[in-house]
Amino acid sequence: MNVEALYHRPKNSFAYAYDEKTLHIRLRTKKGDMDSVSLIYGDPYNWNEDGWQTSKMAMEYSGSDEWFDYYFAAIQPEFRRLRYGFELISGDVKKVYTERGLFDEAPFDDTAYYFCFPFLNSADVFRAPSWVRDTVWYQIFPERFANGNLKNDPEGALPWGSADPEINNFFGGDFEGVIENISYLKELGISGIYFTPIFKAKSNHKYDTIDYMEIDPQFGDKETFRKLVKVCHENGIKVMLDAVFNHSGYYFKPFQDVLENEEQSAYKDWFHLREYPIKTEPRPNYDTFAFEKSMPKLNTENPEVRRYLLDVARYWVEEFDIDGWRLDVANEVDHAFWREFRKTVKSVKPDTYILGEIWHDSMPWLAGDQFDAVMNYPFTNAALDFVASEKIDAAAFAEKIMNVVHMYPENVSEAAFNLLGSHDTQRVLTLCGDTKEKVKLLYVLMMSYSGTPCIYYGDEISMTGGKDPGCRKCMEWVEEKQDLDMYRHVQKLITLRKTVSGFGNGATLKFLKTEDQTLLFEKVGDNTSVLIAINAGENSALVSYSLDENKNAYDLWNKTAPVSGTLKVELPPFGFALFEVK
Amino acid sequence: MNVEALYHRPKNSFAYAYDEKTLHIRLRTKKGDMDSVSLIYGDPYNWNEDGWQTSKMAMEYSGSDEWFDYYFAAIQPEFRRLRYGFELISGDVKKVYTERGLFDEAPFDDTAYYFCFPFLNSADVFRAPSWVRDTVWYQIFPERFANGNLKNDPEGALPWGSADPEINNFFGGDFEGVIENISYLKELGISGIYFTPIFKAKSNHKYDTIDYMEIDPQFGDKETFRKLVKVCHENGIKVMLDAVFNHSGYYFKPFQDVLENEEQSAYKDWFHLREYPIKTEPRPNYDTFAFEKSMPKLNTENPEVRRYLLDVARYWVEEFDIDGWRLDVANEVDHAFWREFRKTVKSVKPDTYILGEIWHDSMPWLAGDQFDAVMNYPFTNAALDFVASEKIDAAAFAEKIMNVVHMYPENVSEAAFNLLGSHDTQRVLTLCGDTKEKVKLLYVLMMSYSGTPCIYYGDEISMTGGKDPGCRKCMEWVEEKQDLDMYRHVQKLITLRKTVSGFGNGATLKFLKTEDQTLLFEKVGDNTSVLIAINAGENSALVSYSLDENKNAYDLWNKTAPVSGTLKVELPPFGFALFEVK
Repeated sequence: MNVEALYHRPKNSFAYAYDEKTLHIRLRTKKGDMDSVSLIYGDPYNWNEDGWQTSKMAMEYSGSDEWFDYYFAAIQPEFRRLRYGFELISGDVKKVYTERGLFDEAPFDDTAYYFCFPFLNSADVFRAPSWVRDTVWYQIFPERFANGNLKNDPEGALPWGSADPEINNFFGGDFEGVIENISYLKELGISGIYFTPIFKAKSNHKYDTIDYMEIDPQFGDKETFRKLVKVCHENGIKVMLDAVFNHSGYYFKPFQDVLENEEQSAYKDWFHLREYPIKTEPRPNYDTFAFEKSMPKLNTENPEVRRYLLDVARYWVEEFDIDGWRLDVANEVDHAFWREFRKTVKSVKPDTYILGEIWHDSMPWLAGDQFDAVMNYPFTNAALDFVASEKIDAAAFAEKIMNVVHMYPENVSEAAFNLLGSHDTQRVLTLCGDTKEKVKLLYVLMMSYSGTPCIYYGDEISMTGGKDPGCRKCMEWVEEKQDLDMYRHVQKLITLRKTVSGFGNGATLKFLKTEDQTLLFEKVGDNTSVLIAINAGENSALVSYSLDENKNAYDLWNKTAPVSGTLKVELPPFGFALFEVK
Repeated sequence: MNVEALYHRPKNSFAYAYDEKTLHIRLRTKKGDMDSVSLIYGDPYNWNEDGWQTSKMAMEYSGSDEWFDYYFAAIQPEFRRLRYGFELISGDVKKVYTERGLFDEAPFDDTAYYFCFPFLNSADVFRAPSWVRDTVWYQIFPERFANGNLKNDPEGALPWGSADPEINNFFGGDFEGVIENISYLKELGISGIYFTPIFKAKSNHKYDTIDYMEIDPQFGDKETFRKLVKVCHENGIKVMLDAVFNHSGYYFKPFQDVLENEEQSAYKDWFHLREYPIKTEPRPNYDTFAFEKSMPKLNTENPEVRRYLLDVARYWVEEFDIDGWRLDVANEVDHAFWREFRKTVKSVKPDTYILGEIWHDSMPWLAGDQFDAVMNYPFTNAALDFVASEKIDAAAFAEKIMNVVHMYPENVSEAAFNLLGSHDTQRVLTLCGDTKEKVKLLYVLMMSYSGTPCIYYGDEISMTGGKDPGCRKCMEWVEEKQDLDMYRHVQKLITLRKTVSGFGNGATLKFLKTEDQTLLFEKVGDNTSVLIAINAGENSALVSYSLDENKNAYDLWNKTAPVSGTLKVELPPFGFALFEVK
């Protein structure tokens, strides 16, 4: 038994409240080490003359990553309290693993040996808004989606799509452009729009805010925005805005004031100024995002700044009824601020979605007191490495995904914001070397995955583009130049997500087979499951799978006749197949 | 290389802000596996044409527990941001360990591979009040410390010490008794008193509160309490009260109201009532502490309850200038409540100490947003298992202590509340089978340990007692019956703690030698260190140790002549020796 591989520490991804009644308990062991794992558990105060009264249940194997196996149990303790340990069986060896290490036999004279989930308090349950589970997002970079009103174009704006995107050029995209094209989005089937920043700013990306209380005039005014939200809501589309609270722009009035008045400025504590006079070269002598002089870091520990930003957070929810905030560079802002932010926003509209931009392991923000989700780049990386760059094979992909699955509580994963690309990355088709069939596979993976998927504008019609600014081309509206085959692919997957239970949330992911670049996995729901076969290789591949007796596999994609017994699927290069098993 | 033993996850005990400038990074490896470990690190935005710019520093070995070695580095990143990985060397094998697993060579094309400490925000630094580090606590169970005023004795109170303590008997201890004996405490050298509950309640232990806004009349009134706090403060003694917020008492007015009015009661949401009519037998049909019908669990998610309890928390700090709150059954109350509690208390008096009663691993409460400390029972258990019951030898003790040390951030350990016993356990002398020399060793261990030690009333004069109620005898005030030798032992250790740098906080613990029940360890400070030799065995033992050149060892206990070269110490059974090395 490899004891050093054992890992369990309560209250993170290993022991958490799934809902008001249910605790989830996970254990990590060395890959292949255990024959069985059971949970020994009881109420800490349930004693009789024989000692502490416990029960035992088998834990379910829930997957493996590169080095580890994971085991899982869900339990509803009658009095919401739990002490527990793990009975491990590996060959001839039996051990009981507790907070105080390994025992040959479980000690029942004191509950203090055991792991402790002290009380399942409803207030501490992680809760993302319920609507998020069923939402399919569409990310819009407003300057580049559609120009609905030429009159509000910024000075020097170029004709739509007439040039490659550059760091400093403008094309005049605006809210009226979005409103005009709402039926395009509705038809695609999306149900939420994530807008990169819309507040007054200097750049085309607007991450350098000048005024958080004003719409950038190149996009419209507050009335247009109000109309946009209304039109979206009427079409069943939620609206999420981008809150750039880590830093302001250089032309944000308080920063201009410190530039002018230096140490005498009333705003000097709004930023992190390290010395006077303030300098921008060779590196800024004030804290910034990265070393970007135009993005001075805001001092979110200053009560005035906090009040101002929380007012901003409240204002756009309260006055414009937006449904979510995406938080830029979220992990560089203090946790204390985000806790207040959550309270503020949820007090106005309890089902507002709070999404943090974090590229790394994000557990410290996802304990229920800060964010509802983060941008799930670990999923993105695994999927792209498997399909786009073919850096890893199907087995390694399965391991990486199982690592992501076990990195977070299940209720956190159900609200995770999944993406194949964004305004910060190369476009997915470009990453796939222009192989559209690869992109189609990636959409199958993302749309069937738990969480909430997001399409970066234009990816659905096979737009291309390298790293920023290349990925920010004007949306292609000339139908002949749109890849409508890809559009229909995405559209069909969205429909499946909406109509087939377990295609998306509500099912447990199980990898069944991996061979070279071929993958078979199952989304196991309560009564039905979805089987998904993926061939990310250049050669065709055959996948076969023995269905349980009394079960049939229904082809979800091609609607061929149902199959029982052994399911055999011939997958063309970069091909896939989807079945519902019931 | 045992890769499954590697553990690092940022933002808990493995990567944390020690202060506003300093990050601490720890890595766990399999015991004995590594020849060296280095930290590869850099600012995430510090790039040039060669890629990401990093530095490398050796990590220090910081100790071992049963299965693992730990490595440590302290670092002050210029821009308060850090990405980092670990270079591991084990024999011929070199690997780089990152958030995305192991690499043969560190990849410098993308910082996303690395572990991430995004930004050291001052607001998120764990900060306990600075006075706590130097405080020696004394726990008083007010009913049993001293009876200073016979007039406020409860009905049926027995003459002081005339009977064994029972669950329901009373002896009349009160505040005037404490005030009268303040010089006894001052002479002992303690600088803080932790009072178990003093608010109006029915039992002798007062954990069944009737009124949180009133002093129990058997202890005095508000004026006596105000005087008590004043006298304590005049004598350099802090005052900590016990907040029993998990549950009220049966006779708490709101609970009486629900008993009377059942579903019609305005207070029905103050508790967790599962059905009507309310029943107490065979088990209460409402949530309680344990299954104790006289302790109905408070619904701290109800805004009225929260407001009430936060008013209580504020009131005693604001009106009576108390210095700390000890939180009973702290882990069964929701985290959300404790976050509000902290804000409330710290807004009135920023250096109030918040101490949670938690017997288990407590990291989820010690991230800076909730408690300043928990009762450090893991230390207690290790020390008692080693010295009192001799269940474990010196090597196992060292491993258990190193496990505790690495369970928490260093700044958390410096404020930990260390104890050998309390009103909830057998008295330490009783646990030691009445062997006083063992108790003396335990005091050496506790007083030299980092954190803040607490003496349970009477232990310093060798009082005995089994489990509750046995451990709650009346304090012995007849000097002939007091063990003044023990008193002087404790007193002398307190003096050392106050006068010798590193005896207590401010030094790094290193175990130098362990053999059977004999132990030699060092508290390494900046310029000096303290050497401590412990013989917890029944036979005398010889400990020898080679001092560094130019260093002398000064006997702190017996003041014999300083030694250089090799230090040889003959320890009698249950003996100890203390040296300052400089």
